[in-house]
Amino acid sequence: MTVRNRLDAIFRPRSVAVIGASRERRSIGHEILRNLLDFGFQGKVFPVNPRAEAIHSMKCYPRVGKIPDPIDLAVIAVPKERVLEVVADCRRKGVPGLVVITAGFQEAGSPGRRLDEKLRSAIRKGGMRLVGPNCMGVINTERSIRLNATFAATHPICGGIGFLSQSGALGEVILSEARSRGLGVAMFASLGNQTDLHANHLLEYWERDRSVKVILMYLESFGDPARFTRIAKRLSRRKPIIAVKAGRTAEGARAAFSHTGALASGDRATADLLDQCGVIRASSIGEMFDMASAFSAQPLPAGNRVAILTNAGGPAILATDACIGLGLSIVPLRRQTQAVLRRSLPVDSSQGNPVDLLASAGPRHYAAALRALLRDREVDAIIVIFVSPILIDALEVATRISAECARVRKTVLACFMGKLRGREAVEHLRRRGIPVYSFPESPARALAAMARYRKYRERPRGRVIRFGADRAGALRILRHARRSGRSVLRAEEVEEILTRYRFRLPPSCEVGTGAEGVAAAVRIGYPVVMKVADPAIVHKSDVGGIVPDLRNGDEVARAFRSLKQRFPGRRFRARIQKRIAPAQEVILGMVIDPNFGPLVMLGTGGIYTEVIRDVVFRVHPVTDQEAGEMVSSIRWIHRGPEARSTAVEANRRLARIVLRFSQLVGDLPGLGQLEINPLILDKKDIAWYAVDARARLAPDS
Amino acid sequence: MTVRNRLDAIFRPRSVAVIGASRERRSIGHEILRNLLDFGFQGKVFPVNPRAEAIHSMKCYPRVGKIPDPIDLAVIAVPKERVLEVVADCRRKGVPGLVVITAGFQEAGSPGRRLDEKLRSAIRKGGMRLVGPNCMGVINTERSIRLNATFAATHPICGGIGFLSQSGALGEVILSEARSRGLGVAMFASLGNQTDLHANHLLEYWERDRSVKVILMYLESFGDPARFTRIAKRLSRRKPIIAVKAGRTAEGARAAFSHTGALASGDRATADLLDQCGVIRASSIGEMFDMASAFSAQPLPAGNRVAILTNAGGPAILATDACIGLGLSIVPLRRQTQAVLRRSLPVDSSQGNPVDLLASAGPRHYAAALRALLRDREVDAIIVIFVSPILIDALEVATRISAECARVRKTVLACFMGKLRGREAVEHLRRRGIPVYSFPESPARALAAMARYRKYRERPRGRVIRFGADRAGALRILRHARRSGRSVLRAEEVEEILTRYRFRLPPSCEVGTGAEGVAAAVRIGYPVVMKVADPAIVHKSDVGGIVPDLRNGDEVARAFRSLKQRFPGRRFRARIQKRIAPAQEVILGMVIDPNFGPLVMLGTGGIYTEVIRDVVFRVHPVTDQEAGEMVSSIRWIHRGPEARSTAVEANRRLARIVLRFSQLVGDLPGLGQLEINPLILDKKDIAWYAVDARARLAPDS
Repeated sequence: MTVRNRLDAIFRPRSVAVIGASRERRSIGHEILRNLLDFGFQGKVFPVNPRAEAIHSMKCYPRVGKIPDPIDLAVIAVPKERVLEVVADCRRKGVPGLVVITAGFQEAGSPGRRLDEKLRSAIRKGGMRLVGPNCMGVINTERSIRLNATFAATHPICGGIGFLSQSGALGEVILSEARSRGLGVAMFASLGNQTDLHANHLLEYWERDRSVKVILMYLESFGDPARFTRIAKRLSRRKPIIAVKAGRTAEGARAAFSHTGALASGDRATADLLDQCGVIRASSIGEMFDMASAFSAQPLPAGNRVAILTNAGGPAILATDACIGLGLSIVPLRRQTQAVLRRSLPVDSSQGNPVDLLASAGPRHYAAALRALLRDREVDAIIVIFVSPILIDALEVATRISAECARVRKTVLACFMGKLRGREAVEHLRRRGIPVYSFPESPARALAAMARYRKYRERPRGRVIRFGADRAGALRILRHARRSGRSVLRAEEVEEILTRYRFRLPPSCEVGTGAEGVAAAVRIGYPVVMKVADPAIVHKSDVGGIVPDLRNGDEVARAFRSLKQRFPGRRFRARIQKRIAPAQEVILGMVIDPNFGPLVMLGTGGIYTEVIRDVVFRVHPVTDQEAGEMVSSIRWIHRGPEARSTAVEANRRLARIVLRFSQLVGDLPGLGQLEINPLILDKKDIAWYAVDARARLAPDS
Repeated sequence: MTVRNRLDAIFRPRSVAVIGASRERRSIGHEILRNLLDFGFQGKVFPVNPRAEAIHSMKCYPRVGKIPDPIDLAVIAVPKERVLEVVADCRRKGVPGLVVITAGFQEAGSPGRRLDEKLRSAIRKGGMRLVGPNCMGVINTERSIRLNATFAATHPICGGIGFLSQSGALGEVILSEARSRGLGVAMFASLGNQTDLHANHLLEYWERDRSVKVILMYLESFGDPARFTRIAKRLSRRKPIIAVKAGRTAEGARAAFSHTGALASGDRATADLLDQCGVIRASSIGEMFDMASAFSAQPLPAGNRVAILTNAGGPAILATDACIGLGLSIVPLRRQTQAVLRRSLPVDSSQGNPVDLLASAGPRHYAAALRALLRDREVDAIIVIFVSPILIDALEVATRISAECARVRKTVLACFMGKLRGREAVEHLRRRGIPVYSFPESPARALAAMARYRKYRERPRGRVIRFGADRAGALRILRHARRSGRSVLRAEEVEEILTRYRFRLPPSCEVGTGAEGVAAAVRIGYPVVMKVADPAIVHKSDVGGIVPDLRNGDEVARAFRSLKQRFPGRRFRARIQKRIAPAQEVILGMVIDPNFGPLVMLGTGGIYTEVIRDVVFRVHPVTDQEAGEMVSSIRWIHRGPEARSTAVEANRRLARIVLRFSQLVGDLPGLGQLEINPLILDKKDIAWYAVDARARLAPDS
């Protein structure tokens, strides 16, 4: 049986056994059985409980093995001590799909974790698939299935949303909110401890499922992150995925070693990575619903151009503010549209954008104005606001709005609040697929997410590029360091690795006296930079370990003396390096994230990197498309009097360096962190020089 | 009659005339009369309408003059053509307070604006006070008044909120939302066009009104901004003011001249200025309500330390994330508290923070855990989450929670959702003053706003400091420039002004040839900087007009030649300036904002100022307290190996420079913009040098 078929056993069973079904109201077993019956499951249900003869007038079996029919899905809600025994029964019976509701496993300390291990191995041996434990069950609203194997208080409406929740309690919140917003669900899974089936499996399952059109997720962790990014990148091109990701990464030891490590610790990396996968991130459950209402009912807008139609100034201003703040544009209307509006609207109304019909506007005015906006080719989406200060029949207005929308396929969201048949109006719009929000900022947020998603879908897929490099030589350097018991590489070693991957480094050498320094500077050519050469000193400029711009022998000798004085020690050594006049300074780093594996970071470089926080992360491997996006997304702008073409060329070269760096990261899994800071652009030859770099080995590999 | 008494005529009238009262349902006049009667106005109401004998069984008067009794308040809802005539009637009758509902004034183009002018002068001449026109009326829920002179569909509940709205339509939304959240209103005013009474008047009125405890505002503009900041600064120390400010400042011409101008154009300045006044800014109407629920029912938390009590992991993680993201801390509980929790909670529950009681927890467990948290002196506020996945009586849990809260005065907010008597539980908590939210992020946002507000209230008031300066000399320079018809000052003029206000400037002089340059450099002392000296070139470094670090005559001569080549022109001149080694670079600027008057900005300086956007604004005049806050709020951190005391001293001196700058701004109202960039710290003498500066005159003053 393939995985797909096993998941069909869980989501499309022909027969379900509820093990731990109970006569007692308020018990979970009782609620699950009742939900299955109430929701109208189209297959057969068998209650299992050794201490009952019948439940809900249904014959009750003492064990699953005693059921005469084959069972596709067993929903298990017995005390945790009995779960393994019941699973063994299921295995003997040949049940392919399990949902274990029971809690007290991995989440409950080390005895629970042991139980979890045993459960996993029992499942694997039996070739079964499992949702849970510690979950609230699964739902499939498909007409020919009608499976509600949860103990939720709310039955969902049938619709296009696939919902994944790592938290059972939030699952409950979510089902209830979806119902009250009139949002229809296709499938729902509360994943619990993910002992067997993970979010990734469900995403793959839903990728090919026609009933699921929009995917919502509440996630605390990513399971196998590399797999998640692979699946999400592919899937999000076909179906929008909206995620609430909780649980900030704790700041670890890696923060101390590099700027990349410190910056990756926050929430920023997660945000960038979801973006890289095309996953839309909602900042709260409320926002997730605002977005879901729009994505599941309306077409994606063709662009960023929004028109606002209103009968009151204040709410329109709030919507305008929110749109502009989120990068949408409130465009001037075409002259033709304005002329049509002038003909059909009240005298004092405003034909700009927002189109303000004034308080007295009725159904006829809304219809005329909306028709004109729907036909304006330079408007991609419309926010319709109706907040009647006087008694106008809201249902009539809503009816005219939905009739207009039915004629033209364009994104329309509403903010609707009427005194006269207001509730009926909202109901009417929602039933016709026009999402209604209470406050004017919410449709703006939903539209912005749609526009972002559309842009994502349209971006080219990109590919991973390989360059010539001496991988074997670089691996030798890492092996040597590891054998010597060092975790931080020496400066020469890092330079050697970068050289083998054809990064440009400014000429440099290490010296032990001032005289050696002067000789080296002459050899290298002025101006030069002098740095303290102690591998223990990581952030040299923070401790005054760099003298930046030396132009003659006197200055070199003086700098050597002063550095030696600042860092007293028997074997003081300094590094003399050709000075590259910094036209731009960037930072390029890699750190291994516990969730996502290796991350590549590009940002504004120099000593203020962590203050400015102008950085962008991508999960390794980086494609050419992504490298270009990274370069253009950092706020740092190529300024200066030189030709614009130079800046374009510099950016193009920087993108290729990012790709080369990504290749290095993939080739050398022994590296735990690597950071080039600063990577400096020399304007003269439009070349990027790795002026300083540090590297650390991964803890064990 | 004082203003206060006039406002009493509007908010505490003993008699109200409804002019334009109508028998026709759905008409505004009809709705207002009905609201007055339904809400139980404690005084006398007189309908006025020449075309009716009686309305609602009340005798109707043809004109206000025909009413035998004195009238305190006239609510006017007649067609706009008749408003002035009715106002004249009111004046003859001696009516002190007016509310004009009628629209079609200033908001409706130039004929409307003329009408508005006439209305204003009629009011002024009659010594009357006016709310409106183009508004939805006023409310006072005080038991002895019970005035609802609006056409809103919702009667408010009595409570402590004062509500100001510049938009009538939003007023409607707000009253309806307040009702559905169980939030009580003391007074409400829809301000309309603010032809006479502004937000400022209402704020002053409510400052001394005991019934108003929390103020909510929806504002589009500030009226008299200087007065607003003065009142808000004072009032916000006594009562929280929560504002939704709409309408982003359009980017004006001032953007081009200085970084300060460009940065002040966004929404950032408004945010900083509300913060300076202690006004809590909500980003949306929804968030305003989340905050209002907490402020109006709960005590302010004593600090940032939050404990979370939950029966489910997911929602607690979301609340934790939101708290940490907003600067609150989820503290470890005291050992004693943990011991108490261990004794009274189920075995598998977690006694960390969040305290997770697990799904099976009932009323008893909630009571015990909450009692322990309320007694923990190291916990300032508690978020109680109850999202029952199974059937536990939510009302019982709520009852135990409210009983515990009644014993100890500590901030408690709830996120509550139960299946069994869930709605009753929410009702119960709200009635007992415990705000309930649907999603776990909302109480975190409300708590963060409360903590911020508390901090604001506790900060010292601060004072404006004056330094010795040659004001007369500086004014002479401005007069001279204005007489010469120049709006941009020459570099020497700016330097002269700064010198008269005792800013330190690096020695410099202007030269016309390379040889003059070398001589000047020797006089000033190496190293020097060379800049193109053309007043038309504002951002010199953007066009390659600065050569930064010249150390000998050769370099000076070469730099002169290359600058001259780059800026060809008959009279090329360069400026030689002593080079200050930049330990820190900041920007200090002033721009006149159309809303707030002069703004003072401090931020990270240099050419990337606009990219980094690490800046802070304050309305002039800046107090010593505010100057200190400005210095410590920019992210730029004083790094480097030198003693920590040096950094402290440098920051102290910078704060004094900000104060001196603020004095200069106040002394010289003729200045439209002034920007010192960079202002550089020389580590050696811990002094700040104004290395470059530009200034422009105000358009007309």
